[in-house]
Amino acid sequence: MTTAPGPEPAHPEPSPFTTADYAARMAAAAESAADAGLAGLLIAPGPDLTHLTGYRPTAETERLTLLVLAAGQDPVLVVPALEAPDAAKAPGAGALTLRDWTDGKDPYALTAPLLDVSGRFGVSDNTWALHLLGLQRELPTTSYTPLTAALPMLRAVKDDRELARLAAAGAAADAAYAQILHVPFAGRRESDVADDLAGLLRAHGHSQVDFTVVGSGPNGANPHHEAGDRVIRHGDMVVLDFGGLKHGYGSDISRTVHVGEPTAEEQRVHDVVREAQQAGFAAVRPGAACQDVDRAARAVITEFGYGDRFIHRTGHGIGVTTHEPPYMVEGEEQPLVPGMCFSVEPGVYLPGRFGVRIEDIVTVTDDGGRRLNGAPREMAVVE
Amino acid sequence: MTTAPGPEPAHPEPSPFTTADYAARMAAAAESAADAGLAGLLIAPGPDLTHLTGYRPTAETERLTLLVLAAGQDPVLVVPALEAPDAAKAPGAGALTLRDWTDGKDPYALTAPLLDVSGRFGVSDNTWALHLLGLQRELPTTSYTPLTAALPMLRAVKDDRELARLAAAGAAADAAYAQILHVPFAGRRESDVADDLAGLLRAHGHSQVDFTVVGSGPNGANPHHEAGDRVIRHGDMVVLDFGGLKHGYGSDISRTVHVGEPTAEEQRVHDVVREAQQAGFAAVRPGAACQDVDRAARAVITEFGYGDRFIHRTGHGIGVTTHEPPYMVEGEEQPLVPGMCFSVEPGVYLPGRFGVRIEDIVTVTDDGGRRLNGAPREMAVVE
Repeated sequence: MTTAPGPEPAHPEPSPFTTADYAARMAAAAESAADAGLAGLLIAPGPDLTHLTGYRPTAETERLTLLVLAAGQDPVLVVPALEAPDAAKAPGAGALTLRDWTDGKDPYALTAPLLDVSGRFGVSDNTWALHLLGLQRELPTTSYTPLTAALPMLRAVKDDRELARLAAAGAAADAAYAQILHVPFAGRRESDVADDLAGLLRAHGHSQVDFTVVGSGPNGANPHHEAGDRVIRHGDMVVLDFGGLKHGYGSDISRTVHVGEPTAEEQRVHDVVREAQQAGFAAVRPGAACQDVDRAARAVITEFGYGDRFIHRTGHGIGVTTHEPPYMVEGEEQPLVPGMCFSVEPGVYLPGRFGVRIEDIVTVTDDGGRRLNGAPREMAVVE
Repeated sequence: MTTAPGPEPAHPEPSPFTTADYAARMAAAAESAADAGLAGLLIAPGPDLTHLTGYRPTAETERLTLLVLAAGQDPVLVVPALEAPDAAKAPGAGALTLRDWTDGKDPYALTAPLLDVSGRFGVSDNTWALHLLGLQRELPTTSYTPLTAALPMLRAVKDDRELARLAAAGAAADAAYAQILHVPFAGRRESDVADDLAGLLRAHGHSQVDFTVVGSGPNGANPHHEAGDRVIRHGDMVVLDFGGLKHGYGSDISRTVHVGEPTAEEQRVHDVVREAQQAGFAAVRPGAACQDVDRAARAVITEFGYGDRFIHRTGHGIGVTTHEPPYMVEGEEQPLVPGMCFSVEPGVYLPGRFGVRIEDIVTVTDDGGRRLNGAPREMAVVE
């Protein structure tokens, strides 16, 4: 095979995770599973598999790919024969055994001998029901629990090298935000500004753009609005919420800007959300519960009379995905631990009028929290 | 909301499916479920939900979204409150009841009263294990079977309007292939040609590009190779396999080209695969089993001594995804029915050397099969 030398990458990857790194992660996960009384972990393609093996198949499909981490045996990756060559190239492949199966064979029957027939297993949340039902049928005396219920902390606490990647992704998102303030807003479609954001994220080293929300005017009042054909007008509030992956780790930032000078009411709502975001951040410290972050942010918004207009939880974890445990939500009593990384993103949504959301990624330190986004949170005026 | 008039779309969508269309699909699915002895169907975001309701949430997440089709009740879509406004805009929303839930509540407890506590349900294959386990925990006397096991035909037979969309997607892929033959291959990276293919698919009306395989030289021998940094050389065989969605329906075509004149062996392997593809196509007729298509294609390749180098099944269905049941594979006895659409894509893979794959989408007619791709199957010589 001949390959020409490529151009020097503008965003060189930090030192890659090694086979030994993945071996250590798998060993730690297996130990955590044993501590939780589980016979093992079953990991389908997705962020858990990426974290544990570095293997990211192109697609999640009806063909079973499953990492089996079980007590007293080396890690085994069950994989379709077609995909075995790619799996063998994954950086963690040297720390596991590949067991491949060909179309027409029953992959559940192949997997069954790897499992304790009376065991209870943690299964990655996003495993297809097709596969879980296949295992339940093959081994009716096994039982299963979602990985995030059994081991919510499995990927939640980041080590220094992961933190460095998340910080780099956050800095890239900050840089994209600084630049988007200089593009024209009024008279362009939301989707045009969204395209600009995607381009800026890529220019700042993102290999993948996951979302580019541009919610102008009334569209900002729908927190799950992405970006549409609406032409942005002078006088609009515009919610920007964008992120993706850089060097395999996620960014996610929200800022709300105004096209021209805001009204007093618009400024007031923005001030409330900014204060709520600060309160949520200030609640971050080791030992606090996830729900405390939500409560702190929500209390400010409620105090100012917008409690029923803050219609989502305050945050979500981030790592090899832009959306993962832990969740900053009422009822989540999981204590915060140094190294956890998550969003703090309160919002106020006034249906038919406008919305405001402000979001930073925050990591838990030994004595509090540290923002991984440094972009100004004051409302910027754009043109 | 102000929206400016847009440019005339170059690829106007055919008449959209209406609320009545989705109502009819949901009713037919519920009836099929009852005929199969099921208490109902549970449909998570993905192609089944798209087909039944027209609703395509931005992402599949840990937040439960679930369509409940149960005997004797109107369709209900359980949806996170955050996403309810988007769900309400789906074309099928007028034919179902939205039941929303807010963060911090238990969506499985909300769903449980909709289900027969001793019922057996078909659940969409790609439903997250997290959600299935949530329902199993809430209702331990229910039982579940994968939708494709219970109702493999649910989306397999396309009506005339779906066929028209699949034919349009196929014609667009043909047009992209015709144009790619005129770009330079030698001296460029696989990924450059892949980018060209993606651009051509979009230029011919695709809204989404799912894959652009460019497997040159030895990379062509790995059927799951996508496109990499390898620089294509004079003398290479190059497998091209690309597709995506146009007007919501899929394209998927493979052709193998040669940079400069092929050797006698290369030509022979290509001839064998072309003959196998023709044999697979010729086996398509109502009442034949899916596995007959695989057997017919495989017999040719085996006859010429390459049987052990044809390392995947012969085909897969296509519709609102580029990869779905029915599968043309040994052991699949499902009879072919007019309106089914699937790929016929035999290949021969010589490790370390090259590969050949030829693929058309084929639909079953009243008395045989009809190709939805018309691109020449002879080996093209490129530069």
